[in-house]
Amino acid sequence: MILLFTDFGWAGPYVGQMKAVLAEGAPGVPVIDLMHDAPAFRPRPAGVLLAALLGEIPAGAVVLAVVDPGVGTPRAPLVVAADGRRLVGPDNGLFEPALRRARSAEAWRITWQPARLSASFHGRDLFAPVAARLARGEPVPGEPVPLDRVRRPDWPEVLAEIVYVDAYGNAMTGLSAGALPPDAMFTIAGRRIAAAAVFGAVPPGTAFWYVNSLGLIEIAINQGDAAAALGLAIGTAVSWEREGQSPQERAPHHP
Amino acid sequence: MILLFTDFGWAGPYVGQMKAVLAEGAPGVPVIDLMHDAPAFRPRPAGVLLAALLGEIPAGAVVLAVVDPGVGTPRAPLVVAADGRRLVGPDNGLFEPALRRARSAEAWRITWQPARLSASFHGRDLFAPVAARLARGEPVPGEPVPLDRVRRPDWPEVLAEIVYVDAYGNAMTGLSAGALPPDAMFTIAGRRIAAAAVFGAVPPGTAFWYVNSLGLIEIAINQGDAAAALGLAIGTAVSWEREGQSPQERAPHHP
Amino acid sequence: MILLFTDFGWAGPYVGQMKAVLAEGAPGVPVIDLMHDAPAFRPRPAGVLLAALLGEIPAGAVVLAVVDPGVGTPRAPLVVAADGRRLVGPDNGLFEPALRRARSAEAWRITWQPARLSASFHGRDLFAPVAARLARGEPVPGEPVPLDRVRRPDWPEVLAEIVYVDAYGNAMTGLSAGALPPDAMFTIAGRRIAAAAVFGAVPPGTAFWYVNSLGLIEIAINQGDAAAALGLAIGTAVSWEREGQSPQERAPHHP
Repeated sequence: MILLFTDFGWAGPYVGQMKAVLAEGAPGVPVIDLMHDAPAFRPRPAGVLLAALLGEIPAGAVVLAVVDPGVGTPRAPLVVAADGRRLVGPDNGLFEPALRRARSAEAWRITWQPARLSASFHGRDLFAPVAARLARGEPVPGEPVPLDRVRRPDWPEVLAEIVYVDAYGNAMTGLSAGALPPDAMFTIAGRRIAAAAVFGAVPPGTAFWYVNSLGLIEIAINQGDAAAALGLAIGTAVSWEREGQSPQERAPHHP
Repeated sequence: MILLFTDFGWAGPYVGQMKAVLAEGAPGVPVIDLMHDAPAFRPRPAGVLLAALLGEIPAGAVVLAVVDPGVGTPRAPLVVAADGRRLVGPDNGLFEPALRRARSAEAWRITWQPARLSASFHGRDLFAPVAARLARGEPVPGEPVPLDRVRRPDWPEVLAEIVYVDAYGNAMTGLSAGALPPDAMFTIAGRRIAAAAVFGAVPPGTAFWYVNSLGLIEIAINQGDAAAALGLAIGTAVSWEREGQSPQERAPHHP
Repeated sequence: MILLFTDFGWAGPYVGQMKAVLAEGAPGVPVIDLMHDAPAFRPRPAGVLLAALLGEIPAGAVVLAVVDPGVGTPRAPLVVAADGRRLVGPDNGLFEPALRRARSAEAWRITWQPARLSASFHGRDLFAPVAARLARGEPVPGEPVPLDRVRRPDWPEVLAEIVYVDAYGNAMTGLSAGALPPDAMFTIAGRRIAAAAVFGAVPPGTAFWYVNSLGLIEIAINQGDAAAALGLAIGTAVSWEREGQSPQERAPHHP
């Protein structure tokens, strides 16, 4: 199957045009819209989301991932294999979090060029045809590159900031399930925020954190809009300390 | 085919993750987004919409229906068969309107448990795998339950309130085509609202009611936004009387 | 493949209901959402967009195109063939721009009638079943009509106005790539707007025009919202002159 992960949104013909290319290039392969509201133009938080989502994706799948503020500049087009999934998209760090998690990984620089390449829509003209080729079993139309050529060693190990806000105002952080002890407390907008197992475990209006269905720490308010109430947006830094710590001891931990 | 009926909206990875599960579990089965803006967290109006939509759905289809405010609480997971369509979702009344309309019906409580069940996303972890099994021809992974164990006898026979407002502000009621005589008049926000056959049959700006393409009574304004102009939202009660009745006789009828 | 081009938006059950009809009527045929936010109720700009999109669509595809303000009135239902693509939809000018571009074209008036035709949803009840028939290889269920019976000779040769505004505020015009010399300048809201090859070629905040990925002239602002800044909406007329012309010579050209 081919999964689409983009920041295109649902408006306009952009997603549909990519799908027309995929349907023609890889007949019979299911094409699934994984997400089209990835953090716009921001490969770093988008990459954290993508890496979290990969855990739920069948091995063998091809992911067409386009968060590409540099379209039209010389950034390279890549294929990355991470634990059996192949990711197709721009070389801008979008795949860095997935590569960090992967037990096995490889990378290729796409050398194939379409007959016609628009300046602004490589998703349709370049990445989709390559994804279709991979999905129909062809080899990567490119050359292998050493992993260290595509890695971002200077990026922080975990992203202690908001990476996504959903339609209800729940705010996902870049922190994975294992990154926090159960008694960790966030302090945001002057409110102390402790863990809860589920929404129903706290009174309406109460902010809490929990491990969401992607395995990421998410900050939410039962029957409320956490992003609005707490001033959270993509990129907002968050910090936490252990419950037992006195306020004097509170040095923000960015695990 | 598998049809998706949820209140997830189009944002985020939620619908996409369910589809990845379905594509892997039921290869070759078409998966169709019937609606992802069902009344959020409100099984009663959502169920009225779902029942109205079922009339247009081919027999043999599987409907994955997730409007599930109780996710994470002990509400049971169900499969219901209604006139040849199988519905998979939570036991919270969402299937009650469909069961009332059905000439033949059965119900099962799902007993199968996935290897990993997140607290907040049973759509992906539990309901989607069960829908995939049904779509590929397997029996319900659960035990039959008597229909009266899943029915809601205390719910009103018809829902004389708004169950959906579309992007244009047209407001669907829970009243079916046959529930009103052609000379019925609604009184909403001080305006008397009579029937019209089509939008073009009344002057621009005029409110009217008609039987919409789902077979539900819908309140609309030609070239206008009925919900905004008349203060209608999901859950707003509506009442009507026959045109001939004098104001003194007007007792609201909730047929 | 069948491509959907409508002004229904993503909300509500409308697109999903059409897809259920297509999945039942044309099993195994991929169905692709090309665009559901075509200019609402406006066949002329919608038709310009549709014609531009057709260039990217494989020959043999069926396009179900529903921008149909006259639904329920006597406007005829059509099938049009343009350079190997078949378009199914209302006779309201929506196909005029495609017919102007086509090297070969034919037209049929649909005479088939469904058993049940709702007053408000011919997309589901009439056009989708016809599109399914064409996609599974059946002939048009209708009678040929001479092209001049469906053409709109009174429409301007090109549409020098905004035909679409995307989610970022980029404003597509109805002008095709070849319609303007590279030194053409738009004057909009008092700003002179010259061509640039890509967004990154101008400083942030600068308005420019370029040939977008559909082959249409688009007005944009690097890292900004052109529609908001320049007061552009669907239907806004735009005019341009060559750079060398003095202000006195500036007669707006509508090529």
